[in-house]
Amino acid sequence: PTLTPAQYSTVYNMFSFTIASMGASALFFFLSRNQLAPKYRPAMMVSGLVVSIACYHYFRIFESWEAAYELTGGQYVPTGAVFNDAYRYADWLLTVPLLMVELIAVLALPKGEGRGLLVRLSVAAFFMIALGYPGEIAKYEAGAQYWIFFVLSMIPFLYILFVLLTELTKSLERQPENVRGYISAARLIVLVSWCFYPIAYLASGVGGLSGAQAEVGLQVGYTIADIVAKAVFGVYIYFIARTKSEN
Amino acid sequence: PTLTPAQYSTVYNMFSFTIASMGASALFFFLSRNQLAPKYRPAMMVSGLVVSIACYHYFRIFESWEAAYELTGGQYVPTGAVFNDAYRYADWLLTVPLLMVELIAVLALPKGEGRGLLVRLSVAAFFMIALGYPGEIAKYEAGAQYWIFFVLSMIPFLYILFVLLTELTKSLERQPENVRGYISAARLIVLVSWCFYPIAYLASGVGGLSGAQAEVGLQVGYTIADIVAKAVFGVYIYFIARTKSEN
Ligand SMILES: CC1=C(/C=C/C(C)=C/C=C/C(C)=C/C=O)C(C)(C)CCC1
Ligand SMILES: CC1=C(/C=C/C(C)=C/C=C/C(C)=C/C=O)C(C)(C)CCC1
Repeated sequence: PTLTPAQYSTVYNMFSFTIASMGASALFFFLSRNQLAPKYRPAMMVSGLVVSIACYHYFRIFESWEAAYELTGGQYVPTGAVFNDAYRYADWLLTVPLLMVELIAVLALPKGEGRGLLVRLSVAAFFMIALGYPGEIAKYEAGAQYWIFFVLSMIPFLYILFVLLTELTKSLERQPENVRGYISAARLIVLVSWCFYPIAYLASGVGGLSGAQAEVGLQVGYTIADIVAKAVFGVYIYFIARTKSEN
Repeated sequence: PTLTPAQYSTVYNMFSFTIASMGASALFFFLSRNQLAPKYRPAMMVSGLVVSIACYHYFRIFESWEAAYELTGGQYVPTGAVFNDAYRYADWLLTVPLLMVELIAVLALPKGEGRGLLVRLSVAAFFMIALGYPGEIAKYEAGAQYWIFFVLSMIPFLYILFVLLTELTKSLERQPENVRGYISAARLIVLVSWCFYPIAYLASGVGGLSGAQAEVGLQVGYTIADIVAKAVFGVYIYFIARTKSEN
């Protein structure tokens, strides 16, 4: 769709902002790792990897956005080069399992339990992402394909949310007093930011949004969700790890 | 506006100078961190993040400046690609709260006090920046919009200056003898550099400056202010932290 300069720039500037945020978070996570107890360093390492991977993908996403539109007669008109949604899905394929590792590492669950949980969640995450992609590229105009894959992807998504919610709640009781606040904040961050993804997906499916508005809504929604799910979440993991290190 | 070669190059060279300054400061802050007492390392880390984020944005600003003008018949004529002011605002959105963290960390205020202060200052900073942006992109020619958002942005700005001034003065008395000089220098740096921003904003609003002069004044003003508020300020934070580490 043709975008107004304000629509085009909103997305453009948000992408640049995200590159800066992810890059700065990566520096922070990698450099503060050694200030923590050795037991919690792997969690910070993984946080650093997640935002580094995202920094790379947002760099590509930014360039793909630039290539997809051209200023012509005061409007941003599609050039014919398609904006590449696949960068996001490639990013998620790598980062979602790492986020699970991060969460489980910082909870310091009993060994066997943590591993089983990780496998179940990662398999579900794989199907969630793999099934969402065909719907994403089909776009709303494709009708059935857009909706069928949405519904298929929602099944592992709801399963993940359910497992995370019950497991995190159970583990909360075993955690030291002074990190419980951070852990329930982390749980809230996961719940809210993860729900943002299917909502952003629906930006083009809900009535009333024009093609341009739907595109902007989708990009802005995914971007905010990514900043919260990766960088803000990582900062909370840092707080949990630091508090546990001091205990 | 059309710029003379001298005007164009002044801004161009200042941007490049700033990339070098911010990059070098980032290396300095990150690498000298481990020479300090653990208590003061987070402050240096945050200083390093601030100048890293600025280094990224000045790189983008530099490229945007290059794309916005073209040498035609001995003058630099606008190409039609707009110079993207949003990079500065995105930068401030990230760096201003971090500067507050830095300042509060090095003062080593009592825990609860520091956190409350940080929240109040960050919220005010968010409104200062968010309200300044619509005025900035409107430019002086827009008349009312330029002035209304200036005044709105000045309210949180004055609040921040007031809080910083009173809090820093109060904390000065509790600080060890041998860092008081540095802390009052840091206070002066904050006051002077922060006041530079609204003054630069007004470059296009005050009578007598042509469009070209106003643009150059704005860019040079913001750039000097950024170097002082981020890099020079960070060096003072380093002095404070080093002196306190030796105590
Ligand atoms: C349910 C659903 C989706 C969910 C995506 C999610 C939940 C992605 C989470 C990504 C994260 C957390 C990345 C952080 O690194 C899709 C694929 C948009 C397709 C539509 C249905
Ligand atoms: C009052 C005022 C402004 C103040 C900006 C300031 C004070 C920015 C500070 C930035 C810093 C300190 C960045 C360092 O990293 C604006 C937005 C120009 C708009 C006009 C009114």
